[in-house]
Amino acid sequence: MSRFRKSIATVSLSGTLLEKMQAAAAVGFDGIEIFEHDLLNHPGTPAEVRQIAADLNLTITLFQPFRDFEAMPEAYRQRNLDRAERKFDVMCELGAPQILVCSNVQDIALNDPARAAADLHAMAERAQARQLLVGYEALAWGRYVNRWRQAWDIVQQADHPALGLILDSFHTLAVGDTLDGLHETVPSDKIFFVQLADSPRKSMDVLSWSRHYRNFPGQGALPVPEFMREVVQAGYQGPLSLEIFNDEFRAASAHLIAHDGLRSLVWVEAEAGATQLPAPPEFLGYEFLEFAVDPNSAPALERRVSALGFERRGEHRSKAVTLYQQGNIHLILNSEPDSHAADFFQVHGPSVCAICLRVDDAARAMQRAMALLCTAWEERIGEGECRLPALRAPDGMLFFFVDDELADRLYRTDFHLSRPPGPGIGLLEVDHVAQAVPPDRLGSFMLFYRTVFGLEPETIHEIPDPYGLVSSLALVSPSRRVAFPVNVSESRRTGTGRFVNALSGAGVHHIAFTTADLQQAVVAVDEKAGELLDIPENYYDDLDARFLLPGEELVTLRRLNLLYDQDSSGTFRQVYTNTFEDRFFFEVVQRDGYTGFGAANASVRMNALAARQAARTN
Amino acid sequence: MSRFRKSIATVSLSGTLLEKMQAAAAVGFDGIEIFEHDLLNHPGTPAEVRQIAADLNLTITLFQPFRDFEAMPEAYRQRNLDRAERKFDVMCELGAPQILVCSNVQDIALNDPARAAADLHAMAERAQARQLLVGYEALAWGRYVNRWRQAWDIVQQADHPALGLILDSFHTLAVGDTLDGLHETVPSDKIFFVQLADSPRKSMDVLSWSRHYRNFPGQGALPVPEFMREVVQAGYQGPLSLEIFNDEFRAASAHLIAHDGLRSLVWVEAEAGATQLPAPPEFLGYEFLEFAVDPNSAPALERRVSALGFERRGEHRSKAVTLYQQGNIHLILNSEPDSHAADFFQVHGPSVCAICLRVDDAARAMQRAMALLCTAWEERIGEGECRLPALRAPDGMLFFFVDDELADRLYRTDFHLSRPPGPGIGLLEVDHVAQAVPPDRLGSFMLFYRTVFGLEPETIHEIPDPYGLVSSLALVSPSRRVAFPVNVSESRRTGTGRFVNALSGAGVHHIAFTTADLQQAVVAVDEKAGELLDIPENYYDDLDARFLLPGEELVTLRRLNLLYDQDSSGTFRQVYTNTFEDRFFFEVVQRDGYTGFGAANASVRMNALAARQAARTN
Repeated sequence: MSRFRKSIATVSLSGTLLEKMQAAAAVGFDGIEIFEHDLLNHPGTPAEVRQIAADLNLTITLFQPFRDFEAMPEAYRQRNLDRAERKFDVMCELGAPQILVCSNVQDIALNDPARAAADLHAMAERAQARQLLVGYEALAWGRYVNRWRQAWDIVQQADHPALGLILDSFHTLAVGDTLDGLHETVPSDKIFFVQLADSPRKSMDVLSWSRHYRNFPGQGALPVPEFMREVVQAGYQGPLSLEIFNDEFRAASAHLIAHDGLRSLVWVEAEAGATQLPAPPEFLGYEFLEFAVDPNSAPALERRVSALGFERRGEHRSKAVTLYQQGNIHLILNSEPDSHAADFFQVHGPSVCAICLRVDDAARAMQRAMALLCTAWEERIGEGECRLPALRAPDGMLFFFVDDELADRLYRTDFHLSRPPGPGIGLLEVDHVAQAVPPDRLGSFMLFYRTVFGLEPETIHEIPDPYGLVSSLALVSPSRRVAFPVNVSESRRTGTGRFVNALSGAGVHHIAFTTADLQQAVVAVDEKAGELLDIPENYYDDLDARFLLPGEELVTLRRLNLLYDQDSSGTFRQVYTNTFEDRFFFEVVQRDGYTGFGAANASVRMNALAARQAARTN
Repeated sequence: MSRFRKSIATVSLSGTLLEKMQAAAAVGFDGIEIFEHDLLNHPGTPAEVRQIAADLNLTITLFQPFRDFEAMPEAYRQRNLDRAERKFDVMCELGAPQILVCSNVQDIALNDPARAAADLHAMAERAQARQLLVGYEALAWGRYVNRWRQAWDIVQQADHPALGLILDSFHTLAVGDTLDGLHETVPSDKIFFVQLADSPRKSMDVLSWSRHYRNFPGQGALPVPEFMREVVQAGYQGPLSLEIFNDEFRAASAHLIAHDGLRSLVWVEAEAGATQLPAPPEFLGYEFLEFAVDPNSAPALERRVSALGFERRGEHRSKAVTLYQQGNIHLILNSEPDSHAADFFQVHGPSVCAICLRVDDAARAMQRAMALLCTAWEERIGEGECRLPALRAPDGMLFFFVDDELADRLYRTDFHLSRPPGPGIGLLEVDHVAQAVPPDRLGSFMLFYRTVFGLEPETIHEIPDPYGLVSSLALVSPSRRVAFPVNVSESRRTGTGRFVNALSGAGVHHIAFTTADLQQAVVAVDEKAGELLDIPENYYDDLDARFLLPGEELVTLRRLNLLYDQDSSGTFRQVYTNTFEDRFFFEVVQRDGYTGFGAANASVRMNALAARQAARTN
């Protein structure tokens, strides 16, 4: 088993052909598929493109697509072979070794595999004379040929050394097919090329689905790793190439998308067993959250967290950093100049600038992250202070990893500690940390959490904010001790949209803490400084109609502005705070078996926050 | 036949319940459906909402939805009736006369129409005791009841005066059903309510389609006027109510959306024959295009149009306005201070600020526009000058109407004219005027052109700009003498996206002129001042492979940067100019039977413009 060469089709990236090639090269791809449309719009000759590729150390792996060639009525046959010769001219000049012929979609095509084989044989014969190869691929919406086994039957029948099979994960998996049995069916040297794409599941026609919603392996819901396992088992040795038609990729930064693409290929080949990556971390919980603050915002945030029962636990030995604690929750307020936090504050204002996660093996977590193209980070530290391994998340936030050994001495080493805190209001752990992300970056965040951290995506919830829809996707560790709901909104007027707009990027939007007794916790919150969010009376009338809650429980929920939900495994009570300086807010939850994140109540919260925002503006 | 009362469901509009109600009232709706989710998030009591509605002169027409009620297993029956009683409490306080019960979607529901009828009878009995009505609607994805005839069978079987049928155009038409035979089947007094929604055709599951892509009648592709004709024929007397689930509506200005909604209802009831509107204008062509310029941009634009063969024809008698002419094309450059053009220039820079269309009857055109809620415009004119009837388009641009009588004397009356122009480079007519529009405003423009002007939408084309997709929808008059392609892009990095962003709105993006001989015209263009757009060589290699063009023709196309296309009815040649001050550009087309607008070449143009933009920036 060995590492595959990595390629990407130019249609997957935004920009001019030159920009696409530069982005692919910059992040480390070995090659590119030239999508004809990109060449056609390039102002230079194919020979010049060949030279650019050589200068960038990129192989041109494929030229595509060649459509509606095989099994056409006789009148079209010679014409199509002539058309192929013209494209062979371009390929020779370009230095592209192989052309992708996708199965015919024309209504006038003939349902005649023998004729298709004869046509492809004729084309392969011409290609061979030019030292080119022809790869034949079954499009999912091909008129008669739309499964790889059909394409293979035709390739086998054509029996020409310059003709082989091209496999594409989207065309196979989107129609519910698999590669099962590939290694018993197709000799490895007849698999000429492999294209990979994932996609969310869509209940729509497969052509529209394919043209707009493909994404990188790991960003969707198709079993691409299983597909890849069959490819590996069949002994394929060529490049793995990403061919993605995605409206958002077309509009995004080519460099960022290319980086995600390469990460997805590194991940999927490992998932398929072709390479080995260090195993994902086993998450034991959140160790601390670090807030970037400045001398103005620090006292306000201190008041807010104190009102929620946190106690000041210590001062950093060498930096302007304060530690707060309650239960197993550690909050760090960092106003040190010339630090990551200060840089972060410049861009984001008061915000979570780092999250430390407790893992089984911090070194292995970092090794996996580096193998998956993460950037490590080293903060300036004082003499004798702890060095925590850290990496940058896609939004520039830091993730620290700490294992038991280091966690034990972390605060003692770096801080002047006062006595351990009292019980506060009974908050115990960080439950989850939710982020708001620009809609075109959701794929990046999903890929990062899924591949680097090994988190699993849950069902996407669509939540009506009064000014647009918000989609929420939770990524959760197998242990369920670490969870990152990621929220996106196409509307710039929603709470999520305004947050993302104000930041020109992503950020932590809220932080939820657990408690064993929410009623007791809420009663203990300092009413003024705690700023708990008011919930409309009508919500409780509806709760009353929806659930058979005891009258007394309903009175308490209503009086304390608590929200309620239940699922098949238990009940859930939650309370929100108002937003802190129009950035993040806190949430306290009491889980009694419930496994969700309160999506059923999120709309109520969004409405209440919007009403408060409107009241303040008026 | 008489005008229907007009209502809109609060879910159709963005904002808080108060904002939704204010928007509906402001544009002139008679009533609203209260969507429960909006009430639940409202901080005031239902009685307060009733008072707000009364103060705004809005009737509350319906309370909705009540889900999964009928034909449930016995264990749920009493519980569901209790749930209904709680909602009746809310409705009585709210003053909502009717509740919408939509057909059960639960897997555990029983396939038992008799039981459904008995349940609905029981509910209606309770409703009657509170002087409320129950309307039963077949959801398109109801578990067992998903057609209006099924719902009617159950209503008939239940046979209760407080129970009736609710009809919804989306639920009927999206599944390919019609209301055919309604008037022979359902007595008019048993049709309790009618909801209207249109939608583009989508090949996806009907639930997702319904929840995200509905729009107003006239904005989609469903036969809503035919649906309405059956409703009228059946003698329905209640309100027409818009119930639209649309992601963009949720994010847009409630006032603008409400205005479109009311326009769509006025149009659809007329299309159904319930009322009469003045007939749409018969378009005879473009009379003139008026550009807003300032003293700086005027000379540059004069140079550009002169290079394209236009001659200065006259000066306005009382304003800083110049007339250019070539063939039947009149261009007006307006730099008059304190005018519509000056206001437009402030916001849009140099741009088309008015279009005068030649119609059979200008007065009737204006009457129709006013009936469809357009705003008339009266420009300040000098003594004895022509007063042209005018209205504001959705982007604030003006449309003038002129009929033969006025066109004859228009220029003579208002301008000091010099001698008629020579043949110029052979431009003859305005072919089409393309606009770039923010994606969330496409529905408004489509509705405006379709209802006010009677234009017909053609197929939407998706065109890859190097930095994202651009969708192009042409609206064309039956005579095909007036056509407005409307372009939108979700990406802010495309040419269309950047244009819309720079304007913070919509505007004319390019103007196409016809010629009988494009080769001759292009040769005659002043090469430097004309700024024709360079087309990449590779485009012509591909043309060569795609079409069997004579070698000589290909040489000419290549030499002159002409683009070529063909369809089943003929051939098409076109040339583009560079953009004028990063705003609009010109296009010259030679149609030999071809009926499209060159969408096949639009991507080449977008790439060439982007390359030029990049070259200038670097």
